[in-house]
Amino acid sequence: MRVAVLGVGMMGQDHARRLATLTKGAQLVAVSDVDAARTDAVAAELGVRAVHDPAAAIADPEVDAVVIATPGFTHEGLVLEAIAAGKPTLCEKPLTTSPETARAVVEAERALGRPLVQVGFMRRFDAEYEQLRALVASRELGRPLFLHCVHRNATTPPNFNSEMLILDSVVHEVDIARFLLGEEITAITVLTPGRTAHAPEGLQDPQFVLMETASGTLVDVEIFVNTTFGYEVRTELVAERGSAMTGLGVGLVQHSAAGWGGRIAADFKQRFGAAYDTEFQRWVDAVRSGAGVDGPGVWDGYAAAAVCAAGVQSLRTGRRVEVDLGARS
Amino acid sequence: MRVAVLGVGMMGQDHARRLATLTKGAQLVAVSDVDAARTDAVAAELGVRAVHDPAAAIADPEVDAVVIATPGFTHEGLVLEAIAAGKPTLCEKPLTTSPETARAVVEAERALGRPLVQVGFMRRFDAEYEQLRALVASRELGRPLFLHCVHRNATTPPNFNSEMLILDSVVHEVDIARFLLGEEITAITVLTPGRTAHAPEGLQDPQFVLMETASGTLVDVEIFVNTTFGYEVRTELVAERGSAMTGLGVGLVQHSAAGWGGRIAADFKQRFGAAYDTEFQRWVDAVRSGAGVDGPGVWDGYAAAAVCAAGVQSLRTGRRVEVDLGARS
Amino acid sequence: MRVAVLGVGMMGQDHARRLATLTKGAQLVAVSDVDAARTDAVAAELGVRAVHDPAAAIADPEVDAVVIATPGFTHEGLVLEAIAAGKPTLCEKPLTTSPETARAVVEAERALGRPLVQVGFMRRFDAEYEQLRALVASRELGRPLFLHCVHRNATTPPNFNSEMLILDSVVHEVDIARFLLGEEITAITVLTPGRTAHAPEGLQDPQFVLMETASGTLVDVEIFVNTTFGYEVRTELVAERGSAMTGLGVGLVQHSAAGWGGRIAADFKQRFGAAYDTEFQRWVDAVRSGAGVDGPGVWDGYAAAAVCAAGVQSLRTGRRVEVDLGARS
Amino acid sequence: MRVAVLGVGMMGQDHARRLATLTKGAQLVAVSDVDAARTDAVAAELGVRAVHDPAAAIADPEVDAVVIATPGFTHEGLVLEAIAAGKPTLCEKPLTTSPETARAVVEAERALGRPLVQVGFMRRFDAEYEQLRALVASRELGRPLFLHCVHRNATTPPNFNSEMLILDSVVHEVDIARFLLGEEITAITVLTPGRTAHAPEGLQDPQFVLMETASGTLVDVEIFVNTTFGYEVRTELVAERGSAMTGLGVGLVQHSAAGWGGRIAADFKQRFGAAYDTEFQRWVDAVRSGAGVDGPGVWDGYAAAAVCAAGVQSLRTGRRVEVDLGARS
Repeated sequence: MRVAVLGVGMMGQDHARRLATLTKGAQLVAVSDVDAARTDAVAAELGVRAVHDPAAAIADPEVDAVVIATPGFTHEGLVLEAIAAGKPTLCEKPLTTSPETARAVVEAERALGRPLVQVGFMRRFDAEYEQLRALVASRELGRPLFLHCVHRNATTPPNFNSEMLILDSVVHEVDIARFLLGEEITAITVLTPGRTAHAPEGLQDPQFVLMETASGTLVDVEIFVNTTFGYEVRTELVAERGSAMTGLGVGLVQHSAAGWGGRIAADFKQRFGAAYDTEFQRWVDAVRSGAGVDGPGVWDGYAAAAVCAAGVQSLRTGRRVEVDLGARS
Repeated sequence: MRVAVLGVGMMGQDHARRLATLTKGAQLVAVSDVDAARTDAVAAELGVRAVHDPAAAIADPEVDAVVIATPGFTHEGLVLEAIAAGKPTLCEKPLTTSPETARAVVEAERALGRPLVQVGFMRRFDAEYEQLRALVASRELGRPLFLHCVHRNATTPPNFNSEMLILDSVVHEVDIARFLLGEEITAITVLTPGRTAHAPEGLQDPQFVLMETASGTLVDVEIFVNTTFGYEVRTELVAERGSAMTGLGVGLVQHSAAGWGGRIAADFKQRFGAAYDTEFQRWVDAVRSGAGVDGPGVWDGYAAAAVCAAGVQSLRTGRRVEVDLGARS
Repeated sequence: MRVAVLGVGMMGQDHARRLATLTKGAQLVAVSDVDAARTDAVAAELGVRAVHDPAAAIADPEVDAVVIATPGFTHEGLVLEAIAAGKPTLCEKPLTTSPETARAVVEAERALGRPLVQVGFMRRFDAEYEQLRALVASRELGRPLFLHCVHRNATTPPNFNSEMLILDSVVHEVDIARFLLGEEITAITVLTPGRTAHAPEGLQDPQFVLMETASGTLVDVEIFVNTTFGYEVRTELVAERGSAMTGLGVGLVQHSAAGWGGRIAADFKQRFGAAYDTEFQRWVDAVRSGAGVDGPGVWDGYAAAAVCAAGVQSLRTGRRVEVDLGARS
Repeated sequence: MRVAVLGVGMMGQDHARRLATLTKGAQLVAVSDVDAARTDAVAAELGVRAVHDPAAAIADPEVDAVVIATPGFTHEGLVLEAIAAGKPTLCEKPLTTSPETARAVVEAERALGRPLVQVGFMRRFDAEYEQLRALVASRELGRPLFLHCVHRNATTPPNFNSEMLILDSVVHEVDIARFLLGEEITAITVLTPGRTAHAPEGLQDPQFVLMETASGTLVDVEIFVNTTFGYEVRTELVAERGSAMTGLGVGLVQHSAAGWGGRIAADFKQRFGAAYDTEFQRWVDAVRSGAGVDGPGVWDGYAAAAVCAAGVQSLRTGRRVEVDLGARS
């Protein structure tokens, strides 16, 4: 599957590198950006073609699929071209910048008759949110009553305005609320409490957003994008018989009649699965680069064997056993 | 880089699937096991060649590198063959089953003159251990004085004996202590406190292991492999001016004059980086399988746009705004 | 200071016992309740006088001060009588059941010219809330922007109605918000999301309350009183440069540029101060009751001395030393 | 019960104040110390008699019971005098400074025929240790296998020597291990890993202590008394089917087949019981001192009533309601 990344700003470059070095089964073949110099630089670094016109990249017969990471106002046109060309598309959020144009994309895909466009709401792929969704779906804690959300950023880029707190930031909570609850939002209210002194002139930060769903669940969101430090995203589900919180950094923490707490890894695959993935990727990268090894080598294997053999001797004798490795060859 | 996996028991199958579906830059081309039926089944499932003789797989000119996941007693022979054939090797721990044979492998690689064999101590690739190692290396908390380790498994496989608690389990703490502290172990003592009633007849479980390093750091390990539930691995570094613990599930928790606590994600890449990786992998897999989309689709993009547009209206007016998506097409 | 407790329902009995057994400097001399049988029973148990008319207890020259724990609708009359009699009063919340009558109490005390009546908002005496208030006052994290509050009870008593969620439960958040922020509430909005199936017929539970302060801080309260288990009270302050949460059970947890975390006890007095208080109270109670000892006795002192002496010997010799206590006399 | 405190160094002064201001049912009547000036100063501050000879204080017919907080080497003599005088005694640890002398105290009390002397191992009165003991006793997690203990102090007083780490510090773990496990210690080994650079010349700090019980439970203790900051005491029980840890500051955290976690307060008495105790003590102290009130007053009661009344109005109407308190009188 040959992929072109359209838009190679901060986000697009990140995605291009991900496809080039990490995503199995994909081959990055081209990058495209209206900024020709940037396109050329990224293409050179990653060893792929530079295509200066994104529309040309979509039309290119050597391109099987596209990732759209251009500015939001260009999405509508590019997504519609991709649908017209029948090219599978992963489009960064927002899909488009208005409900009307987004609806038009829905209709274009419907006319095509098959799903072709995926939207980049990446939180749905986060393990904690997946667990929380499964918990909601199981109704183990009963019907959902509240989602309390906190979304905090250190600072905002230049030209960030008050509406972008909704359009660029709260949009993640809009999607995740729909994902977790499995129903649509029916009303929204935005409150504007006192401003932080750390927000740029004219920016209403923080804001407090209340959303209602058809079944009566209330979703509240503290959006605060100039905290001066860190990135904090937290979502607490409150249901009829208990609550569960993501974002404390400890996996899902559940409160119920059984007490508060979390789950313990079932086995080493669950605890160290990601470490195995990393180990293999780094080994393959090392072999391909000629380094041969990127991790513990034979000396480490030998040292471990020597210590363990002494340990077995200690187990048998009940005594302290010294270990002598000899000189390192 | 064409890879063969030797040994397709539980662990080897896992690695074969990892190489086939996740590790970028590697191509799984063959699997090999003395159990011919199992070899054929795994080969068929993954669409690769079955090679019934591991030595033949190493020698195969269509194989560039090998992963050794056969039983430990076969490692010595296979690793030496791989070195003789000049094939890069990732060998599951243990490297071999005795210090003498492990030393022989060290010498064989030295004779070759370049690193060719990596040993599968995967904890070194775990993010928390990497952070802990960096903390030790920084000497931010001073010189290390203790490593307190806990290593617990739910149950043991059949035929697990008392020495295997050292050889198969504590071997991980041996390696991680060397990795974290950057020095060799010089002595080891194994204590045998009361047995759990849940261990099989004849198995001394738990054990308590004390290891000493050249500089005087004491490493203590509770090894307990029949806890009846879960998998728990925890390592606490105690240094001259503070301590830090992995394995609570919250990243590294540090205790120092500043208080107790951890770090907050700096930005969304740090917090949701793994989610982006998963998103891309699942999208590529979905496109290649013909499903097209595996994640939020255009309707989700449209719904988010509609709610956010209503939110902007609420921000402007200070009022609650209802959202009507229309019928889902 | 001779105290009478008026009202000996669940709460009043608790307070009467507290005064009789724990509060240094107070002497419980009488209990009073309109339920004469209950009054007599509690008086007999605690060895104090039963006074069947609360007004008579207030007027009693042998009573120096009163605790009012009668039903809320009686508070106005009793407090005014106590003020008229010049008797110091600790009045359970609510002070009275309407703003008008409460204002009348304010005026009565003002006319008296000195503070005489304390109101039973006990959260102000909780260590975490005291720390949180000090943190707000210090402006270490900048100006407060939000207080996110959660207040959950397992079940409600019979005849609890929707307004009592505000009057009996949220009243605690009203007071604690004023206490923490040091300013008055200027507006309030109560939202009624979906009802839990576990609430009695006709009860709107949960509710979501928004309060605004003069300076623009927004206080939101989830009040949910039929969670079916446990009691959870949590308050998170969000200020310009960080946040801090009470109620996780780990003392105040602060999030700021320094990371997340809490404070470590400075010394053993801070960590075990409450244990010393308990030790002394239980010892005095044991001596007075004739039991003599309630805690470790001389055998425990001897056993500790024997083990420590062996430890010193081990420290000197570097060897394991056995301990033999002899027969317990 | 009239109490004399013998020894008014840091610890003794603390206990004298505790008895004078907090312990219900006790009356501090005298303090005694070989340092006459210190005795006089403390006696004057607390309004009690100064007795310059501790033996005289024990013999004093106006003294019903004594607290011994003098240096350890004086304990033996004073405790034996107290037993001879039949005076109930709370003796700070150590009971005496050698097993032989401690055994003599045991015999003296036995000859008397009733318990008279309590030893100041205050950890037994700590809520978390009480919970842990109950958990051990319940055998809910099976038989105990390990107690992993950590005991850390910021710094040591002048003249602290290597043996005092055992005699003054580890003595607490000795007692708490006996208390938790309900059996005697049968052997002890003290290991001396690398020294911290922050320990005074000649002091072996840290040390690692291994204790064994009759039934085979292993108790290990990291004792480290020059960490440069804070006070940390942690005890982890490991039993056949789970583990539980004190000292994380979150109550007992249990790991078992059900997951990891703790208990949620059952009701407000459990969560805020200590706050009620403090509220009452501070109110009584304020009334007795003439301050009248030390906590929320009538204005606070009025403000809460006004906000709640507005809340009820908002609940009825579904609208935001403003609150106007009028001028503060």
